Amino acid sequence: MQLGLIGLGKMGGNMRERLRRAGHTVVGYDRNAEISDVSSLTELVGKLEAPRAVWVMVPAGAATQSVIDELGELLQPGDTVIDGGNSRWSDDEKHAAELGAKGIGFVDAGVSGGVWGLENGYALMVGGEKEHVDRLQPIFQSLKPEGPYGYVHAGKVGAGHFAKMVHNGIEYAMMQAYAEGWELLEKVDSVDNVREVFRSWQEGTVIRSWLLDLAVNALDEDQHLEKLRGYAEDSGEGRWTVEAAIDNAVPLPAITASLFARFASRQEDSPQMKMIAALRNQFGGHAVESAKK
Amino acid sequence: MQLGLIGLGKMGGNMRERLRRAGHTVVGYDRNAEISDVSSLTELVGKLEAPRAVWVMVPAGAATQSVIDELGELLQPGDTVIDGGNSRWSDDEKHAAELGAKGIGFVDAGVSGGVWGLENGYALMVGGEKEHVDRLQPIFQSLKPEGPYGYVHAGKVGAGHFAKMVHNGIEYAMMQAYAEGWELLEKVDSVDNVREVFRSWQEGTVIRSWLLDLAVNALDEDQHLEKLRGYAEDSGEGRWTVEAAIDNAVPLPAITASLFARFASRQEDSPQMKMIAALRNQFGGHAVESAKK
Amino acid sequence: MQLGLIGLGKMGGNMRERLRRAGHTVVGYDRNAEISDVSSLTELVGKLEAPRAVWVMVPAGAATQSVIDELGELLQPGDTVIDGGNSRWSDDEKHAAELGAKGIGFVDAGVSGGVWGLENGYALMVGGEKEHVDRLQPIFQSLKPEGPYGYVHAGKVGAGHFAKMVHNGIEYAMMQAYAEGWELLEKVDSVDNVREVFRSWQEGTVIRSWLLDLAVNALDEDQHLEKLRGYAEDSGEGRWTVEAAIDNAVPLPAITASLFARFASRQEDSPQMKMIAALRNQFGGHAVESAKK
Amino acid sequence: MQLGLIGLGKMGGNMRERLRRAGHTVVGYDRNAEISDVSSLTELVGKLEAPRAVWVMVPAGAATQSVIDELGELLQPGDTVIDGGNSRWSDDEKHAAELGAKGIGFVDAGVSGGVWGLENGYALMVGGEKEHVDRLQPIFQSLKPEGPYGYVHAGKVGAGHFAKMVHNGIEYAMMQAYAEGWELLEKVDSVDNVREVFRSWQEGTVIRSWLLDLAVNALDEDQHLEKLRGYAEDSGEGRWTVEAAIDNAVPLPAITASLFARFASRQEDSPQMKMIAALRNQFGGHAVESAKK
Repeated sequence: MQLGLIGLGKMGGNMRERLRRAGHTVVGYDRNAEISDVSSLTELVGKLEAPRAVWVMVPAGAATQSVIDELGELLQPGDTVIDGGNSRWSDDEKHAAELGAKGIGFVDAGVSGGVWGLENGYALMVGGEKEHVDRLQPIFQSLKPEGPYGYVHAGKVGAGHFAKMVHNGIEYAMMQAYAEGWELLEKVDSVDNVREVFRSWQEGTVIRSWLLDLAVNALDEDQHLEKLRGYAEDSGEGRWTVEAAIDNAVPLPAITASLFARFASRQEDSPQMKMIAALRNQFGGHAVESAKK
Repeated sequence: MQLGLIGLGKMGGNMRERLRRAGHTVVGYDRNAEISDVSSLTELVGKLEAPRAVWVMVPAGAATQSVIDELGELLQPGDTVIDGGNSRWSDDEKHAAELGAKGIGFVDAGVSGGVWGLENGYALMVGGEKEHVDRLQPIFQSLKPEGPYGYVHAGKVGAGHFAKMVHNGIEYAMMQAYAEGWELLEKVDSVDNVREVFRSWQEGTVIRSWLLDLAVNALDEDQHLEKLRGYAEDSGEGRWTVEAAIDNAVPLPAITASLFARFASRQEDSPQMKMIAALRNQFGGHAVESAKK
Repeated sequence: MQLGLIGLGKMGGNMRERLRRAGHTVVGYDRNAEISDVSSLTELVGKLEAPRAVWVMVPAGAATQSVIDELGELLQPGDTVIDGGNSRWSDDEKHAAELGAKGIGFVDAGVSGGVWGLENGYALMVGGEKEHVDRLQPIFQSLKPEGPYGYVHAGKVGAGHFAKMVHNGIEYAMMQAYAEGWELLEKVDSVDNVREVFRSWQEGTVIRSWLLDLAVNALDEDQHLEKLRGYAEDSGEGRWTVEAAIDNAVPLPAITASLFARFASRQEDSPQMKMIAALRNQFGGHAVESAKK
Repeated sequence: MQLGLIGLGKMGGNMRERLRRAGHTVVGYDRNAEISDVSSLTELVGKLEAPRAVWVMVPAGAATQSVIDELGELLQPGDTVIDGGNSRWSDDEKHAAELGAKGIGFVDAGVSGGVWGLENGYALMVGGEKEHVDRLQPIFQSLKPEGPYGYVHAGKVGAGHFAKMVHNGIEYAMMQAYAEGWELLEKVDSVDNVREVFRSWQEGTVIRSWLLDLAVNALDEDQHLEKLRGYAEDSGEGRWTVEAAIDNAVPLPAITASLFARFASRQEDSPQMKMIAALRNQFGGHAVESAKK
């Protein structure tokens, strides 16, 4: 089928390619004219036959809002917008209402797959009304991995991004699990070869997983990760997962610990541990270390 | 090759079967005469040709110590004992020294595989001196899964159980990760079908894993887990992982949170939260709830 | 000086009393006519001479918003509104802007003191512009405890509630600290009398505090807290503290753990631990417990 | 009464002084001859009349064991040894049994007070049999602070050190509570003067405490703690508290988080966060930072 696709970065560009390989007609737009198929959203909309489907794949927040506002002006009743970016689920209801007032459908799609998606397919978690979701099946079925898994209509508008957000929260804690285990194994003398321990775990164990495979890849490139700094960004979904948990009074100790470990990894020095050092000095006369210059 | 195997429970019994299918001669002993091949350890040792290999697969602690003591009396220099139970790594050095004084070799083997091991093979993490480990390769290669993974000689005596212990620590946090995500998804209204979300994650996502497959199996049996009580035992390795981390000053926030969540799950009422309730009442006059009778 | 005081509940009623004892003229309003001095906000405003000061002491959220909206209609340029309730700091800027557009000043005041405030005074953390804060000094000085402490002009609008919010976050973790220690002491056999241990800590230790004194009071009333259920509410500030930490990428492991412990205390059964139990059963055949009927 | 006192460091030296001011006869021994009253333990024992009381105040572990072994040779039935060092509670039973076999009594005493103890007194948590503890009352009453608090006979042998250990565990989490709150306040723009917020909390709040007073002292010396590195040692009791919790299946999330924060503060770079960075790079192509040279 025909699809407009806005945002042709690392994710969007590969999705265009995967859809074209599957026989779809994709009209892509990007601010970077070199990779764009059209020179404007107006041109993009003009090239699609009604009822149109336009997939938005731009950074969450202001950029997504701006594109959706513009599409609200350009599209017609019966058209559908899909937000496949990393939007916060709470933005989806607002976008659905804004577009819905003009008769335009809205579907939110959480997309997983990263740099491996072009070849392996993208896992899709979709939220929205059945009529809108059903019409987009040809697109979803081509983007998703082969086989029975990798696609779900998770629920109402927002459910797709919510499910993807929780996916990422789980991802944080799984990564933290392997990372903690790796650090402990590296620390003790009796274990000679931590990389080979990780490699062996890839079959027959309870903890075998794709992330474990990736960990082995990383250790094959740099056995003790000596070239890397222990510095980890977080991309929003981890924070939102904890916020959603707080809103719902759900305890998430492992996921939250994983998020906080990333926060701490980005601090040159820890303010809170300065206070601990200061207090120990006050009551016990314990030595302190001077801040580095 | 010939192997003596002591302990024919859920794990040991299936290991005997897997080894026999591979053509090995296994002489099994169990206190339960109905499943035992011999009536005593003396008989077991008598049926094996020197140099013997005897695999101990009994509960960690006193039971394992008792069997190893007895084998120390029965075996001869050149024989080898393998402890494949869930022993604490710190016991291994002691056992190796006790047996080594008599010229008997010692190898520790962490074994993963659970009820799936008979068909899929058992992941093995082995510690010990090269000469002892090498001699046992026919056994290890038959127990392990097919393919390139599932076996590692992790290091010195104790390294096998240490690696298995860390495996279980990682397992705790991975299970906790899925469990936290599942609870949050079940709590919100917008997501209709959490089971199908989990199912969809089995391909194309960052968090696909064998544990995820098992979670889907469990949800297929009982979609909202309504038949289960939220009560989880812990088996020792999680505790030892945290203790090893403390010994080595390694922070393990996610693994430890997972262990503590299990502790809390087994309390009918939380003593510490009684104190919180009491303090809130003291300073704020906040209402308290009475203990259940 | 003259003060209008809206909301005469547990906190507001005692504050009116403390201010009157100090010689101030307080015109109090409450929806409950039996304790109210006037029958309407209009009457309250009419009884105060310009420039007026009106202290709002009603539940955070909709109730506070409604009163501030109404005051915006009734007050005149030069008057000042103080929000002394448990409002979220992020509401303060909005309220200051709404009132400021009409020339009405706004000050936010975090108030601590609970049921002890009438006699001991209320600790005040105040945010707002210097001119507004300075004019209210007679009120602040009468509400605060005697002595050099218990009052701070913490910063701009919002800073008062932010400081009070962090105070409560710290409070959560301090309470959790004592609660954890108490549970551990109660669990071991060698310690005969945990209450007397707590009592002894009230002098000469690093952990002496007012909360410790309250814990001893509570244990004097119920030595093992047997009458209480381990069930603890949370009042918003703890959640907001964690959310503010997430916004600012500050790791708060102890405060967050304390909040999550309260969430868990309110669950009849733990959904996440059902999933842990289900997974253990899947891979290890471990027994599960049935949900209670 | 007469007391032998072994170990005249920061704690022991001041305790000798406090006891002498109270009129006791203290014979002190230290390896440092300049501060020692006698030249050997033999001489120390010879200067005391039977039944003797000898207080051991040396580092926990090997040093304490060595002194207790030597005292076991030098003392007579009816004498009593007090271990006032930071010994692990689990050592106490062993020491009591060793000395008890020779008719020598054993009492364990957890001592709090740090550099403030000489003037304010030392809080004492004591374990042992009533007959031994009672005989030492003149010493305990002189060491403890004035007033009704600061001393407890907590229970059997080991209970004193156990109570002191838990005291320190609580101390860790209380310090962490203030430290987390301080970092968050320092991070936000609206709060101008965090030091003054802390100062104001010293009266009328729920979180007033001696540790808070010390925090204000520290901030008066260095308002933003800029001279300090965020580096905190831990002294054993925090670790033992977590280990005791694990032995007893008691969840201690806040205390453990506090211990782990200290571990992390001492790492130049975080190995586990290297693994997180490596995994993010593997699946998402996310940029990594190079290790510092």
